[in-house]
Amino acid sequence: MTREEIREQIIRKRSFLCVGLDTDLERIPAHLRDSCTDPQYEFNRNIIDATIDHAVAYKINTAFYECLGKSGWESMEKTASYLAEHPRGPVFIIADAKRADIGNTSRYYADTFLGRLPFDAITVNPYMGYDSVGPFLSIPGKWAIILALTSNPGAMDFQVLKVEQEELSGEKSRRLFELVLDKASRWGSASDTMFVVGATRTAELQQLRRIVPDHFILIPGVGAQGGSLMEISRLAINKDVGIIVNSSRSIIYASEGEDYAEKAGAAARKLQEEMDRILSDVFV
Amino acid sequence: MTREEIREQIIRKRSFLCVGLDTDLERIPAHLRDSCTDPQYEFNRNIIDATIDHAVAYKINTAFYECLGKSGWESMEKTASYLAEHPRGPVFIIADAKRADIGNTSRYYADTFLGRLPFDAITVNPYMGYDSVGPFLSIPGKWAIILALTSNPGAMDFQVLKVEQEELSGEKSRRLFELVLDKASRWGSASDTMFVVGATRTAELQQLRRIVPDHFILIPGVGAQGGSLMEISRLAINKDVGIIVNSSRSIIYASEGEDYAEKAGAAARKLQEEMDRILSDVFV
Repeated sequence: MTREEIREQIIRKRSFLCVGLDTDLERIPAHLRDSCTDPQYEFNRNIIDATIDHAVAYKINTAFYECLGKSGWESMEKTASYLAEHPRGPVFIIADAKRADIGNTSRYYADTFLGRLPFDAITVNPYMGYDSVGPFLSIPGKWAIILALTSNPGAMDFQVLKVEQEELSGEKSRRLFELVLDKASRWGSASDTMFVVGATRTAELQQLRRIVPDHFILIPGVGAQGGSLMEISRLAINKDVGIIVNSSRSIIYASEGEDYAEKAGAAARKLQEEMDRILSDVFV
Repeated sequence: MTREEIREQIIRKRSFLCVGLDTDLERIPAHLRDSCTDPQYEFNRNIIDATIDHAVAYKINTAFYECLGKSGWESMEKTASYLAEHPRGPVFIIADAKRADIGNTSRYYADTFLGRLPFDAITVNPYMGYDSVGPFLSIPGKWAIILALTSNPGAMDFQVLKVEQEELSGEKSRRLFELVLDKASRWGSASDTMFVVGATRTAELQQLRRIVPDHFILIPGVGAQGGSLMEISRLAINKDVGIIVNSSRSIIYASEGEDYAEKAGAAARKLQEEMDRILSDVFV
């Protein structure tokens, strides 16, 4: 999906919502576990049908599927295909896999998620540098979403530390995540690279737009992790909207009963309506 | 496998060799692709039988299995089980998965690789900090192998940059990978944490032992990537040997013909004999 197509979907749906399919077999309603041959896929299918009119993107976290072995991989692949072929699509499909390896090996991950499987994007860890990220870039219509500043407490360990760089001599030193934004934004372009910045990082979102004014930002951590939608939107929206906000648990686990899909739909619609107001207010 | 058991195997086999099963279906001998229902597993099984007397560890890189979808996952799981149950074992079994996510999600990866599957260790990316690594630690006999300084060119982008830290004021600033070694070594202990340092980083291996004198180091990059075994061993061996050196392509692709297992065995034995001499020379 191209940048222009993402923008079109956001404007059409009045939404920049991403639904996170962090589908834990132990947290889905009991009746699905008892009655279905593939309860994880069945749950996802119903969540997708109930939320797709309110969302522009879906994020599948591979951890929740890998833990079930080959049957989990099958559920993940079926879910991605279901999204790719949905009659009420298109939607932007993200593999939240946080992969990266030496270039030779990253190529296999890129071929898997952005080639064989119908994902539009994959989340990528920047620690190993340019050749570990390169294979995910420059595939037409496909995206690398690079971790910059994550929403978890451990982000404070390394991501926010000030780094010295010879090229920056004379300049004020930068924090690691700012250097990641700066360097990695030049490996690809605003048409094949996005960045992850957690919704809990409001203080940093403002600074971020000075470094990457044009890039799309994927913002997880609204809801269960506590970030405020209005606050982050005001700070991060750019001329193409430029943000996709993810919510996982507060949507997919909105109810533990048989009405789980209905309640997920209502939770997604509530967020979409808030996004509609924000778009009217901030973006016009 | 405990630290003491790893040490015992090294002393018994006179080897600190890890064989990397980076098994690319397109690079294995053609006759296997034509005649087997699971050629990837068949290749691995024969490589393992031919090399297990010369190696103390095996490293399975998940990228090469994920790219084949659920059948690849099955080949990976069967390979791990084959290693775990091998009559000429025990060997130390590493999932080279380079995972890490927010704590809640890393837990699923830990349960997958160190719980359900019979891996002794998983490689972990430190960028997201302590809560992303924590779930891999403190499982009796299981290990997190944290990326510190990798062998690829992109390691120069962030890992070697000098970082400032308030706690270090007064002290000389450290490079990012040194801070990773320092901080992460205190999240667990030398009995549940190892570090990855590429064989191409000889200049840094000496410095490394000042920060983590006791930890085991997993050293990839000997062979195809060009590191010298004697040089890195002299710099990194500690009182418990403390290093595991990985070679992948130069062993498993030693021949493209029907004699691939025999040639892999010979390549592994050659490295083992060199390690035997190094142990006699350096370790006594």
